[in-house]
Amino acid sequence: MPHPEFLPIQWKSTYLELLDQRILPGKKEFLKLSSAEETIVAIREMAVRGAPAIAITGVFGLTLGAKSQSGVANPEDIETLLSSVLESRPTAVNLSYAILEAKKRIQGNSGWESITKIWETYGLEMMRDDLAANKALGENGVSLFPKDQKEFHIITHCNTGALATAGHGTALGVIRSLRDAGKKVVVYADETRPFLQGSRLTAFEMMEEGIECYIITDGMSGWLMNHRKIDAVLVGCDRVAANGDTANKIGTYNLGIVAKEHGVPFYVCATKDSFDLNLKTGEEIPIEMRKESEVTQFDFLKGSDGKYLFPEGKTSPVGARALNPSFDVTKAHLIKNFITEFGCFVPAEISLRLKNV
Amino acid sequence: MPHPEFLPIQWKSTYLELLDQRILPGKKEFLKLSSAEETIVAIREMAVRGAPAIAITGVFGLTLGAKSQSGVANPEDIETLLSSVLESRPTAVNLSYAILEAKKRIQGNSGWESITKIWETYGLEMMRDDLAANKALGENGVSLFPKDQKEFHIITHCNTGALATAGHGTALGVIRSLRDAGKKVVVYADETRPFLQGSRLTAFEMMEEGIECYIITDGMSGWLMNHRKIDAVLVGCDRVAANGDTANKIGTYNLGIVAKEHGVPFYVCATKDSFDLNLKTGEEIPIEMRKESEVTQFDFLKGSDGKYLFPEGKTSPVGARALNPSFDVTKAHLIKNFITEFGCFVPAEISLRLKNV
Repeated sequence: MPHPEFLPIQWKSTYLELLDQRILPGKKEFLKLSSAEETIVAIREMAVRGAPAIAITGVFGLTLGAKSQSGVANPEDIETLLSSVLESRPTAVNLSYAILEAKKRIQGNSGWESITKIWETYGLEMMRDDLAANKALGENGVSLFPKDQKEFHIITHCNTGALATAGHGTALGVIRSLRDAGKKVVVYADETRPFLQGSRLTAFEMMEEGIECYIITDGMSGWLMNHRKIDAVLVGCDRVAANGDTANKIGTYNLGIVAKEHGVPFYVCATKDSFDLNLKTGEEIPIEMRKESEVTQFDFLKGSDGKYLFPEGKTSPVGARALNPSFDVTKAHLIKNFITEFGCFVPAEISLRLKNV
Repeated sequence: MPHPEFLPIQWKSTYLELLDQRILPGKKEFLKLSSAEETIVAIREMAVRGAPAIAITGVFGLTLGAKSQSGVANPEDIETLLSSVLESRPTAVNLSYAILEAKKRIQGNSGWESITKIWETYGLEMMRDDLAANKALGENGVSLFPKDQKEFHIITHCNTGALATAGHGTALGVIRSLRDAGKKVVVYADETRPFLQGSRLTAFEMMEEGIECYIITDGMSGWLMNHRKIDAVLVGCDRVAANGDTANKIGTYNLGIVAKEHGVPFYVCATKDSFDLNLKTGEEIPIEMRKESEVTQFDFLKGSDGKYLFPEGKTSPVGARALNPSFDVTKAHLIKNFITEFGCFVPAEISLRLKNV
C-alpha cells in the first residue's frame, strides 16, 4: 500500500478528492471535485489515469451527479449522466463495465437519493474489490518467477501502480509482491512519452517503496536487453480482446516486439474487468487519439505560477504537426502470459478462464 | 540546401560559427568559438551533433588550436591537441577518421602556422566533400523507391539533415532528393528522446522545406506501421562494423526490430566515413553513456533568461536514477540496404564495396 497521503482516489461523502497526477512528482495537490462535470474533466485531462482508477472515479462521478439532483429521476437524465461519464475516455473497458453495472444496480429505483446511495456503495465496493484483486494478482505473478532466483530485473511501461488503481497496482503490484517475497527487484521504467507516467509516477512509487529503479527512454529497451539480463517485461492493460490482443499505453506494442526479439517473457497484468470478450481481436478496440500538443510541447506540465513550463514552440517548431494515439494494441502472439487475480494463463486460454470468474 | 542562415557550421577564418542546436527551434543563436577547448565543449555538450558535422567541427577545432600557437610545434603538443579533440565524443567513427587524416596531412610540417593552414584547408575540403557525398547518397537512395509510385510515407529517427552534416543530409537528404524527383513525401519523425532531435530539428528542417511531417513519440512506430502504409524507415548512422551492425542514435535499434516485424524496409544512410572495418561486429563499437539528467529532466532546454525550463525534479522525482546510453547498435539482419554515395548494397557486401572506394 502506498503512503495514505498518496492514495489517488479518496471519497469524502460530499466530494471526491483526486491526487492531481499531471503535476506529480513536482507538486502534490488534491483536486476536490463536487460534480459529475468536474469529474469528467479530471478524467479527460488525465488528472487521474489508469484503467481501474478511471472506472472507480467514473462511478464517484455518477454519484456526484446523482447527489446534485433531488426528487424523482427522469430516465433520460439518468441515461445522459451515464453516457457523459462513459464517454470521458474510450479505450479502457473497465469504465464501460462500471457504467453498465451502475445502470443495472439502480433498476427499480426512481429517486435520486436512493440512486446516490447505490452508486456511492458501488464505488466504495469497487475500491475494496480492486485492492483485493490487485493483491491476488501480485501473488499469482510471483509464481511465474523462479523460486530459487534471488534477483530480478524487470522492464515496465507507463504507471500500473497504486496511482493507477485503488491502491496496490497491477504490474507494479507484482513487483511489490516479489519484493515482499524477499526478492531483490531492479525496475527499469520506460519514461512513457508523451505523458511521462514512467518517469513521473512509476519512478516516484518505486522510490517511495525503496525499490531500485532506473528511468529509460522508450527507445532504450532493446539496448537494455542486450546489455543486462532482463527477466521479464511486466505491463498493465486497458482492454484485452477475446484472442488476447491487448490495448495498453502507447509504446507497449513496440516493447512487446522488442521483448520477443530478445526472448524476454512479456507478461500482461490484468484484472477480470480488463477483458472484453465481445471483441474478437484488437482491431476492434477503439483507440483514443489525443491532442497533438501533448507530443509537440510539454503542456501538461505547469509551473508554480500556473503557466505552462513549455510555451508553444519550445520542444518543436511553432505549427509542427504530430500524431498522438494514446494507446496501441500488442498482438497476442507477443504475450507469454496474462497475470490475473484468478491465475496466470496464455492468450489462447482467455475464453475458458473467463467463463469461471 | 538549407537556408544559409541555418547552416550549422561556418568557418570564419579567425573563429568558427556554430548554430546552437540545443536551443533550436525556440531560438536561433550562433556560438562563436575561438579555441580548441571551446570547440570540444560545444561538441561534448551537443551544440553541434551528427556524425559528419562533429567530424568537420573537430577539424576546425584543431585549426583553432593550432592557430593559437606560434613557432615550431612540439610533437607532444600536437598529440595532446589531436587526442583532446578525438575524445570529445566516442561513438561516431567519422571524427576518428578525421583526426587520423589530420595527423597524416601535417607529416613533415613543424610550424604551427603551416599546420593551421593545412587543417583549415582540410576542414573546408571536408565540408565540400560531405555536401557532394550527401547529394550523391540522396540520388542513390531515390533509386530504391518504385519509379511509378507517387507518394511515400517514411519514418525517420533523430536528425540526419542539413543540421547533422555540412548541408544536405543523409536520411533527410534522400527525402529531399525524393521530393526533388517530383514525389510527395510524408515524413513521420520519431521525436528521439532524450535530446528531441526529431521534434526540435527534423520537424524544423522539414517545415523549412515544405515537406509534410508528423512528430511521433519513439514508442508510436509500431502503431503507425499498423495504421498507415509505411514505405520505408530511413536512418543515419554513427559507425558501421564490418558485418553491418550499425551504431546510431538510441532508439534506432527498437525501430529496426519493429520495422522487421512489419516487413517495412529499413535503410541505413551512410557515407564512406561511417564504416569501420576494423570492428568485426557491433559489440566492439564504443557506446557513449551520457549524464542521467538528460533523461530525468529537460536540462538542455533553457528559457530566455538562461535558466533551465525544468529545474531538477520536474519530470521525475528528485534523486531519480536513469540510464542514458546515447547510441544503440542495430543488428545487421534488420537492415535491408545501406544507402551510400557509392551505391546501395546489403550488409553482406560491405567489405567488397568498401574496397573500391
